[in-house]
Amino acid sequence: MAKLWDKGERPLDALIEKFTVGDDYLLDRALVRADVLGSVAHAKMLAKIAILTEDEFERVKQALKEVLALEKKGHFVIEPADEDVHTRIENHLTERLGDLGKKIHTARSRNDQVLVDLRLYTKEQLFDIEAALLALAASLLAFARKHTETPMPGRTHMQIAMPSSVGLWAAAHTEALLDDLVLLRAAFDLNDQCPLGSAASYGSALPIDRRLTSDLLGFAKVQNNVLYANNSRGKVEAAVISALAEIMVTLSKMATDLIIFSMPEFAYFSLPAELCTGSSLMPQKKNPCGLELVRAKSATVIAHLNQVLGTICALPSGYNRDFQETKRPLMQAIEITLGSLGVMKISIERLEVKKDNLLKGFVPEIYATDRVGELVADGVPFRDAYREVAKNLDKLGHRDPVENIKSKTHIGASGNLGLEISEKRVREAASELTNARQAFDACIEQLLK
Amino acid sequence: MAKLWDKGERPLDALIEKFTVGDDYLLDRALVRADVLGSVAHAKMLAKIAILTEDEFERVKQALKEVLALEKKGHFVIEPADEDVHTRIENHLTERLGDLGKKIHTARSRNDQVLVDLRLYTKEQLFDIEAALLALAASLLAFARKHTETPMPGRTHMQIAMPSSVGLWAAAHTEALLDDLVLLRAAFDLNDQCPLGSAASYGSALPIDRRLTSDLLGFAKVQNNVLYANNSRGKVEAAVISALAEIMVTLSKMATDLIIFSMPEFAYFSLPAELCTGSSLMPQKKNPCGLELVRAKSATVIAHLNQVLGTICALPSGYNRDFQETKRPLMQAIEITLGSLGVMKISIERLEVKKDNLLKGFVPEIYATDRVGELVADGVPFRDAYREVAKNLDKLGHRDPVENIKSKTHIGASGNLGLEISEKRVREAASELTNARQAFDACIEQLLK
Amino acid sequence: MAKLWDKGERPLDALIEKFTVGDDYLLDRALVRADVLGSVAHAKMLAKIAILTEDEFERVKQALKEVLALEKKGHFVIEPADEDVHTRIENHLTERLGDLGKKIHTARSRNDQVLVDLRLYTKEQLFDIEAALLALAASLLAFARKHTETPMPGRTHMQIAMPSSVGLWAAAHTEALLDDLVLLRAAFDLNDQCPLGSAASYGSALPIDRRLTSDLLGFAKVQNNVLYANNSRGKVEAAVISALAEIMVTLSKMATDLIIFSMPEFAYFSLPAELCTGSSLMPQKKNPCGLELVRAKSATVIAHLNQVLGTICALPSGYNRDFQETKRPLMQAIEITLGSLGVMKISIERLEVKKDNLLKGFVPEIYATDRVGELVADGVPFRDAYREVAKNLDKLGHRDPVENIKSKTHIGASGNLGLEISEKRVREAASELTNARQAFDACIEQLLK
Amino acid sequence: MAKLWDKGERPLDALIEKFTVGDDYLLDRALVRADVLGSVAHAKMLAKIAILTEDEFERVKQALKEVLALEKKGHFVIEPADEDVHTRIENHLTERLGDLGKKIHTARSRNDQVLVDLRLYTKEQLFDIEAALLALAASLLAFARKHTETPMPGRTHMQIAMPSSVGLWAAAHTEALLDDLVLLRAAFDLNDQCPLGSAASYGSALPIDRRLTSDLLGFAKVQNNVLYANNSRGKVEAAVISALAEIMVTLSKMATDLIIFSMPEFAYFSLPAELCTGSSLMPQKKNPCGLELVRAKSATVIAHLNQVLGTICALPSGYNRDFQETKRPLMQAIEITLGSLGVMKISIERLEVKKDNLLKGFVPEIYATDRVGELVADGVPFRDAYREVAKNLDKLGHRDPVENIKSKTHIGASGNLGLEISEKRVREAASELTNARQAFDACIEQLLK
Repeated sequence: MAKLWDKGERPLDALIEKFTVGDDYLLDRALVRADVLGSVAHAKMLAKIAILTEDEFERVKQALKEVLALEKKGHFVIEPADEDVHTRIENHLTERLGDLGKKIHTARSRNDQVLVDLRLYTKEQLFDIEAALLALAASLLAFARKHTETPMPGRTHMQIAMPSSVGLWAAAHTEALLDDLVLLRAAFDLNDQCPLGSAASYGSALPIDRRLTSDLLGFAKVQNNVLYANNSRGKVEAAVISALAEIMVTLSKMATDLIIFSMPEFAYFSLPAELCTGSSLMPQKKNPCGLELVRAKSATVIAHLNQVLGTICALPSGYNRDFQETKRPLMQAIEITLGSLGVMKISIERLEVKKDNLLKGFVPEIYATDRVGELVADGVPFRDAYREVAKNLDKLGHRDPVENIKSKTHIGASGNLGLEISEKRVREAASELTNARQAFDACIEQLLK
Repeated sequence: MAKLWDKGERPLDALIEKFTVGDDYLLDRALVRADVLGSVAHAKMLAKIAILTEDEFERVKQALKEVLALEKKGHFVIEPADEDVHTRIENHLTERLGDLGKKIHTARSRNDQVLVDLRLYTKEQLFDIEAALLALAASLLAFARKHTETPMPGRTHMQIAMPSSVGLWAAAHTEALLDDLVLLRAAFDLNDQCPLGSAASYGSALPIDRRLTSDLLGFAKVQNNVLYANNSRGKVEAAVISALAEIMVTLSKMATDLIIFSMPEFAYFSLPAELCTGSSLMPQKKNPCGLELVRAKSATVIAHLNQVLGTICALPSGYNRDFQETKRPLMQAIEITLGSLGVMKISIERLEVKKDNLLKGFVPEIYATDRVGELVADGVPFRDAYREVAKNLDKLGHRDPVENIKSKTHIGASGNLGLEISEKRVREAASELTNARQAFDACIEQLLK
Repeated sequence: MAKLWDKGERPLDALIEKFTVGDDYLLDRALVRADVLGSVAHAKMLAKIAILTEDEFERVKQALKEVLALEKKGHFVIEPADEDVHTRIENHLTERLGDLGKKIHTARSRNDQVLVDLRLYTKEQLFDIEAALLALAASLLAFARKHTETPMPGRTHMQIAMPSSVGLWAAAHTEALLDDLVLLRAAFDLNDQCPLGSAASYGSALPIDRRLTSDLLGFAKVQNNVLYANNSRGKVEAAVISALAEIMVTLSKMATDLIIFSMPEFAYFSLPAELCTGSSLMPQKKNPCGLELVRAKSATVIAHLNQVLGTICALPSGYNRDFQETKRPLMQAIEITLGSLGVMKISIERLEVKKDNLLKGFVPEIYATDRVGELVADGVPFRDAYREVAKNLDKLGHRDPVENIKSKTHIGASGNLGLEISEKRVREAASELTNARQAFDACIEQLLK
Repeated sequence: MAKLWDKGERPLDALIEKFTVGDDYLLDRALVRADVLGSVAHAKMLAKIAILTEDEFERVKQALKEVLALEKKGHFVIEPADEDVHTRIENHLTERLGDLGKKIHTARSRNDQVLVDLRLYTKEQLFDIEAALLALAASLLAFARKHTETPMPGRTHMQIAMPSSVGLWAAAHTEALLDDLVLLRAAFDLNDQCPLGSAASYGSALPIDRRLTSDLLGFAKVQNNVLYANNSRGKVEAAVISALAEIMVTLSKMATDLIIFSMPEFAYFSLPAELCTGSSLMPQKKNPCGLELVRAKSATVIAHLNQVLGTICALPSGYNRDFQETKRPLMQAIEITLGSLGVMKISIERLEVKKDNLLKGFVPEIYATDRVGELVADGVPFRDAYREVAKNLDKLGHRDPVENIKSKTHIGASGNLGLEISEKRVREAASELTNARQAFDACIEQLLK
């Protein structure tokens, strides 16, 4: 296919072409829908400023909707020779509409097209990630509710520390996810700015209406400065991946806990067979591969963040081709996080909790600190009580674990988990998400009508 | 000094002691104030639940205020043998107050102490960073205002692209900073949760009042789940450093632009001598070392983010000693970002703009895209106009750069920078910051009264 | 297709299956050849220890060679349902050979299969990378030879420093590549150990002959300890990627230099049109996209190194599924480095050097340090001479740049580049490479005969 | 103190001075010895080319030796106002020797001084690291010898897999260290090149003798190209830190294994009290803090590698101030690795092995794969035998673990560890190290005589 910038000169060297396109054309397959949406909005704006007639706009819109239809059937495939999604679509329009197709690129550049595509793509993906995060949080809360009185040895330094509960454990991860949501929404907001009309970084001499395209596409606001629009490429991606990395860190901790506590020496938890894989050599093996990969992929997402920040750090202002390298880490980080949230959700929902094994960890020493507390309540200075108990560890006896965990009733302790706070937050966040998503969907439906 | 956990057994091996303390004792010197504040609040709460009498509390408070006074004079220094700031201060109390000092550690652990110390430390530092960010934004805006009509060649791929202005350039960086502020505030909010009372990760059997300590210390809320409090160690740090990394990426782009455009081949900008260093060998050199180090240190902050995420990723729940390694990257990232914001501010304020040199870049080809726009306005389809101009680049002539940049009047373009939007945002943010800081300072003053 | 570990139980959950397979099946397409080679060697060894008859071995070998033939035609494709290359091939053997196919997995595990596959794959790729590195070094040396007397302003801090030459510049990058080769060969050596027979990490009860398989596959030695074989997964990859990252750092510096010095303000160098891409919007643009992507992809390879190290860091001993995540970064880093070496080679070979523009940088101040040297030679203490010249910069005059660069004749200076040292090294290394490659190819040919 | 480049102009802005010096002056305290050595060699060379008289050289040498003596007593301290070690020492010479001191900087720059300082510093540190690595390897080998017949459950995916031994486990880590040594020595070789005489990156007009200084300082060779000398800053550091990161990855795996297997649920191993720290709150705790910090600090060293690569990636040729940021990560990575090797050595040497607990893991299923092997030896195709055993896991019985691990006699298996291979390698490497170190020490002694 013809390059958009082809001027009939010597063709691009084959090696350079292969190197510069790379697998970008594959990644761009995920951007067809967004590129169509951006193009419809842009065309409508061109009609408003009389670059296109209303009739021309309708024909462009129909041709673009045809792209969506073809793509749904798998008949709109971007190949390496197409260079990218933008070229593929402009060429499609020119094939279908002749001279009219050649007008679509007025007052825009592939630079702002890819920006707007990625914003739209990311927005829809973040809706899905929020939904998956809230679904996992809900599963964890249900699990915590069920196990508020299931004792579990609390650990520090991986050694047995103090009495805890399965409920406390599950609720801790829930609160982590809800904090991660705060960061995710901040990144969502940065992403929710419309760069269209920034063109190559320096705007256009034509009287384009940037607010109109922004509104048509359901953005919260126009990204004002045209140079900043391009300078923000990679920055928004980094903000998004950073929030995803925080989610993955939360999940990696859950996964590590579950892997350790599923070892036969603990057997606190057991994963059902359908969530485990086997060994090609050892007939008896049941391996928690899903959890192991959540653990490993958290390092992957961290590396993706590193990649994006490393790529954009110290780049001069304006578009630089380096930006292309930020696309894959963004897309992969999104895919990994979505998959991992799903894996953790079914892992929690189908987890078997083995109460007997949990109780085995309640050796007398687990109550040492509680014993110190009793001496303190009797008036012994803490540090003396501590040393007293330390000298008499062998005199500590068994206690009732359930009574113990119920007896700790200050805010956030095992006897006062405050699950209702998180439950309320999950409900509210889910409702906010539904509203935001519906508003966006309505916008897009209107645009394509 | 005695270790808090010393039980009179065989002493810690010297190599292990050196390795585990590392330079943590040095870093802890920055936490003395925070540890004192946390201890006063904790003691007041112990008085409320009758572990201490009111009189005991007053004596503890006085002894803690003495620590602040000593530290101000440089007489309260943490040495390797002290292990950490918490031990140093508890030992000080016990020296001064005897048995009373031994009570302070009731219902808390060094785990939640270091958590609360870092939260308080970070909060105060983030106030400073916000202030420095807003000061730089204000300087950039003033610079942009002054140079809205100073033409500057706009570049993409570092090659000359289209007309731009110094004002557009400066305003782009301002908007970047204001977006960075969104992320910084999200991180600030995560940090603004009080972990005190979570103890070793499993709370306390005593009826402690966590809301009270949280309120006394001016936190926005209690961090509820006691296990999550510890699990969030490193996560909050990562959120903060991630926001700082975004700021540094913004500054690194500014620095790179300024370094390049100060090369004699451009000489768009000139830094005054007092901001440059010389060479020990070459008498004529004036080197933009501040800018180079801003550029380099952005990679450092990215590595710090990487370090924190790498350290906490896949750690099991509960306190692990690994957390210690997250302290240095946090503190260094904060110090670097503060310093870099300051360096960029004076660099912008004292930058000499050389208009003549900027105009040299306005070769006829810079207007090629504008010429395409004119043909489009005359009804030529964009792609045909593009090819037409491409074939006749030698027919492009000189134009008036100032008229050109003024003529682009859509949102965010060189003729319509929208500086007032950013100016308003800077004012509002500065006012929010002042209010938040005053409220916090009032809290602390009250606590120490 | 049947999983190798399928025991007729409840099937793997679809979500887990999708998540755990990921795109591993795609990556495994690059390992078909290596897996076949490893399997032939393994089968031959099984024949030697009488698990297979000689006739059985021949039939297995033919069926495996058939895989190679099918794959060449694109008829041996691994699909997600196949799980991985090992399963696909074992299933192929069982289809073709019935019970005989079921014997192939005796005394091995997919764990050691993937290890040996990656070692073979990496070895062949590193041969290609060495060849590409030496080809670029040779091009740089030819370029340096041609330009030993082409003056070029030498820079520090990007500011003009002292006279230099295009030859010195090109030779510097050559020496960097030759040092990178040292690291690459160390990584090559680590990779050149045969893990086959380590099985799942704990060897086999059968009397397998690990030296035989190692020799058949052309490895330099057996990787001895069976647990270490698995523990080294990721470590060898990290060593390889680290060497590739050093190469990319070298190339990124070359790319940055070329991008800057191709800006119109310098125009020291000019890339031909066929190595540049255009803009979809701006008709006049010629963008050095290949160089920009070499620059960006160096950050990518660094992130890949980070990913592998982050994934394996602190993993417990023995195989863990996490290892799967080290495959993609290895393969991508290899592909990027190979591509980048090729791009830099044609960039150097076709680079136009614009002597006139290079000379423009020879302002009088560039000779300041040489003037200091003259005063020193006359007996003025260096620091006094330095200050003297600093005060009289305006008295420095023009000199002959070519004479100047020729006059610096100590080791490694512009008048004594020592190109013959690098030329000899390139010749020797190329000859070593040819020998190693021929020996390996002969081994493989013998194996498949 | 006077800056070397001070020309009596407006002084450097205080903020810039603080920012650019940073803590570099602190790091430079570790470079005093190296800077003195480099200066003595340089001065001797200046004498040879008659810039100094023999008598002047002797006076310079004495004054430099005085620096060493002062520094040993702690009386030669670099302060922020000194800017760096080079300035501090030149100023010292000028104070002591007047005009003669002003000659020392002839034909050199701080750029090549810091290069040579870091090379010398790194070389001596790498000697220490090699020694510590070999000492740990020797301890591991002694431990492995002692425990060749101590059974230990072998794991994959952290689940029980097949019989293994404590000897196999320890020997695996030894072989990892010996492979790490290959990379370390490659990095050592890169570092062992003398950059002195490259000056600011463009050499000197004076007829300096670079081979002489290289030989005087005991370098293996001159780093030829003067521009490459500066371009290699950071690259050599990255090669060194990459090798250290590989060592840390090895140690982190050991540490993770030991932490897990010291949990009470395993209690395979027990660390003595003097290697554990306690809790300030919980009287019973014994925490493996040394091991936890080895684990955490492996992430730190990976981040240091990331920092150096991120800093130098895409920097233009020639000295850039950014290089300063590579000093701290190098020094910290060295310090961490040295400390970690020491901690692991005493941990292994003092580790208590609890055979009874190790045997508890030998449940019948651990022999499943051995049972498959028996069926295969009887002629059942492997895959059928696998399925047969999988269906009859409950029929597997107990076996003698010691007999089992002794029965696996192929290369590298539990019955044939090949410890003698590693023992020989450790001996040889230790002898190579001793020779290299003695040769270097003799050189330096001669230089200072």
